[in-house]
Amino acid sequence: MINFSAGPAMLPDAVREQIATDWGQAVRDGYGIAEISHRGSEFLAIKARCEQTLRVLLGLRDHHRVLFMPGGANSQFVLLPMNFGPGRYVLAGHWGEKALAEARKLEPDCACWMRAAADGRLHADGKQDVQKQSETQSFAYTHITSNETIHGIQMRALPALLRHGAPLVADMSSDIGSYPVDYDQFGLVYAGAQKNLGIAGLTLVIARDDFLQQARTELPTMFSYREFAASDSLFNTPSTFAWYVTDLVLEWMQQQGGVMALAAINQHKAETLYQEIDGSEFWVNSVAPELRSWMNVPFRCADSELEPLFLQQAADAGMLGLKGHRIVGGMRASIYNAMPLASVQQLARFMREFERNHG
Amino acid sequence: MINFSAGPAMLPDAVREQIATDWGQAVRDGYGIAEISHRGSEFLAIKARCEQTLRVLLGLRDHHRVLFMPGGANSQFVLLPMNFGPGRYVLAGHWGEKALAEARKLEPDCACWMRAAADGRLHADGKQDVQKQSETQSFAYTHITSNETIHGIQMRALPALLRHGAPLVADMSSDIGSYPVDYDQFGLVYAGAQKNLGIAGLTLVIARDDFLQQARTELPTMFSYREFAASDSLFNTPSTFAWYVTDLVLEWMQQQGGVMALAAINQHKAETLYQEIDGSEFWVNSVAPELRSWMNVPFRCADSELEPLFLQQAADAGMLGLKGHRIVGGMRASIYNAMPLASVQQLARFMREFERNHG
Repeated sequence: MINFSAGPAMLPDAVREQIATDWGQAVRDGYGIAEISHRGSEFLAIKARCEQTLRVLLGLRDHHRVLFMPGGANSQFVLLPMNFGPGRYVLAGHWGEKALAEARKLEPDCACWMRAAADGRLHADGKQDVQKQSETQSFAYTHITSNETIHGIQMRALPALLRHGAPLVADMSSDIGSYPVDYDQFGLVYAGAQKNLGIAGLTLVIARDDFLQQARTELPTMFSYREFAASDSLFNTPSTFAWYVTDLVLEWMQQQGGVMALAAINQHKAETLYQEIDGSEFWVNSVAPELRSWMNVPFRCADSELEPLFLQQAADAGMLGLKGHRIVGGMRASIYNAMPLASVQQLARFMREFERNHG
Repeated sequence: MINFSAGPAMLPDAVREQIATDWGQAVRDGYGIAEISHRGSEFLAIKARCEQTLRVLLGLRDHHRVLFMPGGANSQFVLLPMNFGPGRYVLAGHWGEKALAEARKLEPDCACWMRAAADGRLHADGKQDVQKQSETQSFAYTHITSNETIHGIQMRALPALLRHGAPLVADMSSDIGSYPVDYDQFGLVYAGAQKNLGIAGLTLVIARDDFLQQARTELPTMFSYREFAASDSLFNTPSTFAWYVTDLVLEWMQQQGGVMALAAINQHKAETLYQEIDGSEFWVNSVAPELRSWMNVPFRCADSELEPLFLQQAADAGMLGLKGHRIVGGMRASIYNAMPLASVQQLARFMREFERNHG
């Protein structure tokens, strides 16, 4: 079985095996990591190691706070304007649009700043000059979605314009830890764990101290970045089991050689599929090459009537989760850190064979 | 090992074993329940069965909505006033106080209505007559904490006064499913999963339709009870693994004979300890007998200097998590549904022996 799910997504094989081993041990001991206090020494040791590994892997500095929160990226969409006030949004797909829509329910002054065309390239929204707009309006932050999972658009390099003005906030739910990033560029980064960091139920937040100090006070504790930082993410009972899984995933990432090594493999994996797609008129992906995602590779058959057959035959061959999101249809291969190169090569071979039979 | 943790707490042995078996199967299959889409048929089948089992176990009716949300009881403290406006609070311990404090950050008109004395008995707050206050002020709900884990106070029978006026809302995080309850008495009930329903990361909400219809609209989706009901708790990626564990726990509860059968055992377990405590001057618990918790049994040594020794010797004997909450000190045995009677009897024997050696 090869699991191409967009998220919750596959865990590294070694992590799945470690979890199975640990549950077996829990049966013998009469208790496991999911059944003990989040304030006890056993869990706190995992928590501390998890943060330490993350700091090394991502190259975080002392002025970065690491928080773990509940509620996924969708909750972050709301916490941002609640904590910081109105932001401006760079929209390259579905998730950016959702982030803005939810933010506007709390702060109607949140605005779209730039929007991507179908090829992923950014344009100013409306007729106003982008540079001028950024100078004349005041926003608490500029929000980007670094990887749009549905459209397969990834912003691995930041356009220069984004580095000026309001502090950058990035939803990195689907590409955190998959390529090197200078986290000093961002006031805040958030990521649901269920794609590159483990299982669903945990959200990583990385915040620069100077940005955190701009957050409002007097908010309800569960919705306050300041309070989560002050309590070291232990104000309430966190998702302890999901946290333990994230610790295992980070350890696995380190064993792979860290983010640089993973990025090289991720690029190789993605190019394996994009070369297959570009190598023939049979397949279609219309995202500009420099903006194509390394994490989610959406593709269509030029003859879209062949797509149900492709999906059926792929499933029969043990390749699951390849159906594209309902918004765009077609196919999508989600190939996060945990996906081995050999499995991607198997998909590429399968595509070639399918084309030979039906092209 | 006997795990008396207050929460995250022990799982039933059979559930722990099933999880270990399923992770072993995931290793052989190449994927498990934590690694697949929350919108796929495999997870949706678990979700549907989970709700069906819960409805049967708790005797819910068609007009009850069952929601699963993130963020624990602490988030519910805030969502209540956000969705319904100011409420009045019945305070019997730490958790009720926290619920009110968080609610007031959003709705300063939230008020304390009644407060319990140290023995757990309720009194009107301040000098105003309780009946009069309930008639002259308008609140969206009356909030109770059915079981105060730290103080060991449980309200298994509702005082008649609470059944009139504003709809009742109950935090049942630490005693849901442990004794029969008529859920029609409540507009809304919520419970974190990590004590009686599984592992941390999932919060059960049961809401009556007529109460749900009084909720505000236009809230951010993640904070709106209406939206969670409309999306059947699948607006965003939920804690799928925690949900699967809850399904297993509910199935185990059914196998034990349901809530009535569990309540009989829970009462027996609790009385085993309270008899030990009341049988000698050596031990102290000052909660009124009818309000003593079946879930959390706090106790002191009359000579409090003996407590560190008791905790040390208990730990040496394999009994973990018996230290009382730092607010009250002493000892506390958390004996939720999953705790076997034999383990409680072992603790009682250990207490008797300790008293014989040190009394």
